[in-house]
Amino acid sequence: MSNQWLNSLITDTPQAGYELAIKLSRMGIKYTQPSDSVREKIRPIYSEDAGNLIASSHVIAVNFQTVSAANNYWKK
Amino acid sequence: MSNQWLNSLITDTPQAGYELAIKLSRMGIKYTQPSDSVREKIRPIYSEDAGNLIASSHVIAVNFQTVSAANNYWKK
Amino acid sequence: MSNQWLNSLITDTPQAGYELAIKLSRMGIKYTQPSDSVREKIRPIYSEDAGNLIASSHVIAVNFQTVSAANNYWKK
Amino acid sequence: MSNQWLNSLITDTPQAGYELAIKLSRMGIKYTQPSDSVREKIRPIYSEDAGNLIASSHVIAVNFQTVSAANNYWKK
Amino acid sequence: MSNQWLNSLITDTPQAGYELAIKLSRMGIKYTQPSDSVREKIRPIYSEDAGNLIASSHVIAVNFQTVSAANNYWKK
Amino acid sequence: MSNQWLNSLITDTPQAGYELAIKLSRMGIKYTQPSDSVREKIRPIYSEDAGNLIASSHVIAVNFQTVSAANNYWKK
Repeated sequence: MSNQWLNSLITDTPQAGYELAIKLSRMGIKYTQPSDSVREKIRPIYSEDAGNLIASSHVIAVNFQTVSAANNYWKK
Repeated sequence: MSNQWLNSLITDTPQAGYELAIKLSRMGIKYTQPSDSVREKIRPIYSEDAGNLIASSHVIAVNFQTVSAANNYWKK
Repeated sequence: MSNQWLNSLITDTPQAGYELAIKLSRMGIKYTQPSDSVREKIRPIYSEDAGNLIASSHVIAVNFQTVSAANNYWKK
Repeated sequence: MSNQWLNSLITDTPQAGYELAIKLSRMGIKYTQPSDSVREKIRPIYSEDAGNLIASSHVIAVNFQTVSAANNYWKK
Repeated sequence: MSNQWLNSLITDTPQAGYELAIKLSRMGIKYTQPSDSVREKIRPIYSEDAGNLIASSHVIAVNFQTVSAANNYWKK
Repeated sequence: MSNQWLNSLITDTPQAGYELAIKLSRMGIKYTQPSDSVREKIRPIYSEDAGNLIASSHVIAVNFQTVSAANNYWKK
């Protein structure tokens, strides 16, 4: 996974920051399971399971803390 | 999910901040499972399961940390 | 859930802050499952289950971080 | 639970701070399950279960973050 | 558990800080389950279980946040 | 595990910081289960299990908070 995917934690808006948090969360899965085909097989399982969906939102929330702090909460 | 849903982390009151944290938590689920019908099917499962309810409150708590910090804890 | 329940994160004492953290944790459950009767049905399940009790204490701990920071840790 | 149990987050040493974090973690369980006899019944279950022990240590770690910040990490 | 095991959160290097985080994580388990023999019995279970191993690494990560902040991230 | 593996939390870029967070997360597992062969046996289990993959991404997110703060979020 040598290609570049994360140049900065700075985003223009809170929503773009939230979407970056989603990307960070997905990359954590991708680094742990690099196979596209395995991840494709697993996706329907966790995206239809309540516990896994809540857990996914949890990881996003943790990454969103990081991105929000990096952007000083987009305060003007 | 191109429409705008998050313009700011700033709220007038702590309660509005808590409700924004709930919104952030739900959006994490929505981004992971964009299908309205699948989410509708899953909702009764997690909203009647103790473990999932506690886990939901946990995600809200993490997002509320972010929103609270953004608002400097609504200190006067 | 339009009525007001959270006016401030500031409390006089650490213990009052901890109790506010408990309230925040319960409200996260209440917003996710608004039905009083369903929550009543679930309560005995999670309050007698070790894993759920620990998870509840975890959510309180996260909210207590927020309340503690808001009160600057009640330092004199 | 009207009696006073938490007067301050300040401790003399990091170890006393860690032990306060343990107390905070246990109080989260006690507030959720106030019955002494039920908690007594549950204790052997979670104290011999690997997952619950790790989860307990996790809650302590979160509370220890709070106590450590309150004490400015006991820096001289 | 009256003997002293935690005198300071300050370490010379990030790695020593990480190892202190491991110690903190283990002490959380030891305080919850003080019996050496029970912990010995449980150790092979969680150290060969993927979920428990990840959960252990999670607790270490939380404690490492605390230790890292205490050391101002070992910045020169 | 006496050899040195963590000299600094400072990285040149956010992506290198994220990769350091992955390393920290894996070391938490390695310290808990030092046997290479046991870890090899377990890896396929958690890397094909949705819950474990999400949990792995969660641990990385927590460590990434630490690394990001250490680097002041790579702000110029």
